[in-house]
Amino acid sequence: MNNDLTLLSAVEAAEGIRAGRFSSEQLVSQYLARIDATNDEINAWAYLDRDGAVERARQADWFRKLGRSLGPLHGVPVGIKDIIDVRGMPTGLGNATLDGHVPTTSARVVENLLEAGAVIMGKTTTCELAYMTPTTTTNPHNAEYSPGGSSAGSAATVAARHVPIAIGSQTGGSVIRPASYCGTYGFKPSRGVTSRVGFFQTSATLDQVGVFTNDLKDAAMLSDVIGGLDQRDEASYDWPRPDMYAGVTSDAPVRPSFCWFDMPYHDQCDQDVLQAMEQIVDMLGDQVDRLPVAPELATLPAVHKIIYDYEIARNLEPLIAKGADTLSVELTDAHERGMQITKVQYHDALDVKLSCERFFTQHYMDYDAIIAPSATGIAPLRSMGTTGNAINCLIWTLAGLPCLTLPLFLGENDMPFGLQLIGGKQEDDRLFRTSAWLQHYLQNDINEEEKTNV
Amino acid sequence: MNNDLTLLSAVEAAEGIRAGRFSSEQLVSQYLARIDATNDEINAWAYLDRDGAVERARQADWFRKLGRSLGPLHGVPVGIKDIIDVRGMPTGLGNATLDGHVPTTSARVVENLLEAGAVIMGKTTTCELAYMTPTTTTNPHNAEYSPGGSSAGSAATVAARHVPIAIGSQTGGSVIRPASYCGTYGFKPSRGVTSRVGFFQTSATLDQVGVFTNDLKDAAMLSDVIGGLDQRDEASYDWPRPDMYAGVTSDAPVRPSFCWFDMPYHDQCDQDVLQAMEQIVDMLGDQVDRLPVAPELATLPAVHKIIYDYEIARNLEPLIAKGADTLSVELTDAHERGMQITKVQYHDALDVKLSCERFFTQHYMDYDAIIAPSATGIAPLRSMGTTGNAINCLIWTLAGLPCLTLPLFLGENDMPFGLQLIGGKQEDDRLFRTSAWLQHYLQNDINEEEKTNV
Repeated sequence: MNNDLTLLSAVEAAEGIRAGRFSSEQLVSQYLARIDATNDEINAWAYLDRDGAVERARQADWFRKLGRSLGPLHGVPVGIKDIIDVRGMPTGLGNATLDGHVPTTSARVVENLLEAGAVIMGKTTTCELAYMTPTTTTNPHNAEYSPGGSSAGSAATVAARHVPIAIGSQTGGSVIRPASYCGTYGFKPSRGVTSRVGFFQTSATLDQVGVFTNDLKDAAMLSDVIGGLDQRDEASYDWPRPDMYAGVTSDAPVRPSFCWFDMPYHDQCDQDVLQAMEQIVDMLGDQVDRLPVAPELATLPAVHKIIYDYEIARNLEPLIAKGADTLSVELTDAHERGMQITKVQYHDALDVKLSCERFFTQHYMDYDAIIAPSATGIAPLRSMGTTGNAINCLIWTLAGLPCLTLPLFLGENDMPFGLQLIGGKQEDDRLFRTSAWLQHYLQNDINEEEKTNV
Repeated sequence: MNNDLTLLSAVEAAEGIRAGRFSSEQLVSQYLARIDATNDEINAWAYLDRDGAVERARQADWFRKLGRSLGPLHGVPVGIKDIIDVRGMPTGLGNATLDGHVPTTSARVVENLLEAGAVIMGKTTTCELAYMTPTTTTNPHNAEYSPGGSSAGSAATVAARHVPIAIGSQTGGSVIRPASYCGTYGFKPSRGVTSRVGFFQTSATLDQVGVFTNDLKDAAMLSDVIGGLDQRDEASYDWPRPDMYAGVTSDAPVRPSFCWFDMPYHDQCDQDVLQAMEQIVDMLGDQVDRLPVAPELATLPAVHKIIYDYEIARNLEPLIAKGADTLSVELTDAHERGMQITKVQYHDALDVKLSCERFFTQHYMDYDAIIAPSATGIAPLRSMGTTGNAINCLIWTLAGLPCLTLPLFLGENDMPFGLQLIGGKQEDDRLFRTSAWLQHYLQNDINEEEKTNV
């Protein structure tokens, strides 16, 4: 067995284990070897459960030998952002002064992964409480650069092929942005598709779950696996989830229709990014409508900020009460800022959010997906002390829409950046179908050189 | 639409809705009409959510019109035993003096049903706290007879075609026995396959979930839907569940092997029942080994009783504390009896349970299923004031093995009774495959008259 199994997608790896072409133990061992070889530089693991992962891989193989039912991720390793509880592993929250408690039950998404047969490799680094303070994790493409945040480790471990798939979370742009910087697929399902029980909560209104993969089908399959009704989560709804794998593997009945909004905040984007977007929009021709910014959208980033600041401040209260040195300056400031927002301002913001949701319900009757930049540029240099600008993600997160970033482009220093596609709420399957169409279209109709180099 | 849709299996009904041959609203309306016509006599509903069911059926149809993903039970009505929480419906527990609380979250099995698109029709009658005091529910085959217990309403609603499928629970014989009496399929998955979170707990060691259906494939599919890892349940395990629908729809690789134990307690069975069993064993010829009672098994019913009495007494404590009139005499007595069992007796019983589990692990290397009676006879007359004798179910429940009853026989007054098949732990898929083989064998090789009339 000299093949590099870490080059397989998660779907392919599960299929190989199922068919007996290789074992889960072989797969996990190859990933552990890659971690050993590169993690000193990348530093993407808050907690690595080396022995537990090997032991579980052996059990997964034993299950197969016994002829027992296998799950869709049987024997495949996965990384979990360190604000998400995994039974028996400390939840570090990216803050060393908080005692990392060891939970006795796992987050619902982790239960779903275990039920699917996955191997939990460990906990991936996160910005402190999923906020903005940079981690010590580096970008696997170039250690001078940041992997972004807050799901820094989840993006970096997948980009570095320490695991094929990882789980993160997004309150502003914490999935789409690091995925764009690290050159992976990133997907944030619609709000309510995936339970947040067992997550550290920053904003009940905005917090959402996301995935990182090196393959589009993996993103759909992993999202199907972790999704599910959980009435303990206020956002969860009592109906079947969109079948995303069915979406990503089905043909679009007609050529999909896209739109592009000229957003005022696009002036924050680098020229590379805007040119790449322009190129895609041009290629798609009359499949894209270029729309002026709807007045309904112009104020939304500010609305996102009010809700986020207001809610995170309340969630920080118990930690603030522990003493002055518990939290970083960034979070102490965020707490202070949030506590100054009045209830009236907060509820006004929630009202605007509601009307924005109505706007989008209407909007997706005409369009399959919005095209947008995933980030404002390539990853920032780590020396800049920032995890990057999340502006391109805020409106869609606020509206709870499914967002996908495709790793299509290379910018300065061959650093990657992505194209973002945003779909209708709870139509995550349609967004995957549309994205698969677009990816196929670009791969077949466009010269490779033209596509990946701006 | 003049067809009687209530004659369809749940799998067929879901398929019909999916294909647009009829709507969920039509299906649910036909079931409601049957309830209206027969429930005055059968009295199987503790709480019927007529308006909610129709509304949800309309939403299920709307989902389909929108092209959204549909679940495996999309639009199909289901009944829930009234010791199991359903958000927004009172949990009555079969005891009128307890305030039926209205839970804000549903049991995990109910969440799984909602996620599958099912329509919760309401709560089915249960013996008080899933114990033994008879309900006012009658047997749909003949109102003079008891439907059994404690899952009285779940068995009766399915037998009466008020719903195609229902959920119950079994601590002794509360699924297999009423299913046998009412002539339905009854299945209790392996302990740990299905979460008990949101159930009234009588015995953490023995309580298990079960299903009632009029079709073997439905039993497998429904059990797949409700199963799932839930770390809040101590019995749940971190691996994929057995795929029961795959089991029931696949061919046995070789002719299955069965065994029959001559149990000392078989002297409690009616001659009709023993003759029917003998007939099946004879038919199967050298596919069945007749085994003398293993010494490991002889004492197990008594061990079951010690564990049940000990644990239910502790679970009744808070209700006993509410005052003398809260519980029935039967439960007050059970509490008193249980409190007299010492910790040493209890732990000795748990030790025997462990060695019994080891015995069965070995046993199922040689056999696909144990053949046993489902009950000691046909349903008891209601005038006898009992829900019937559970002796044939105790050992298998104690060992946490999957148990299935097939509605094969008719006894005195054409009242039904079943054949029980017991499989290896967590090999529920293999048990379904074996049962499908047996059912097919009996349907094809045996004269219909000979088969169903003893």
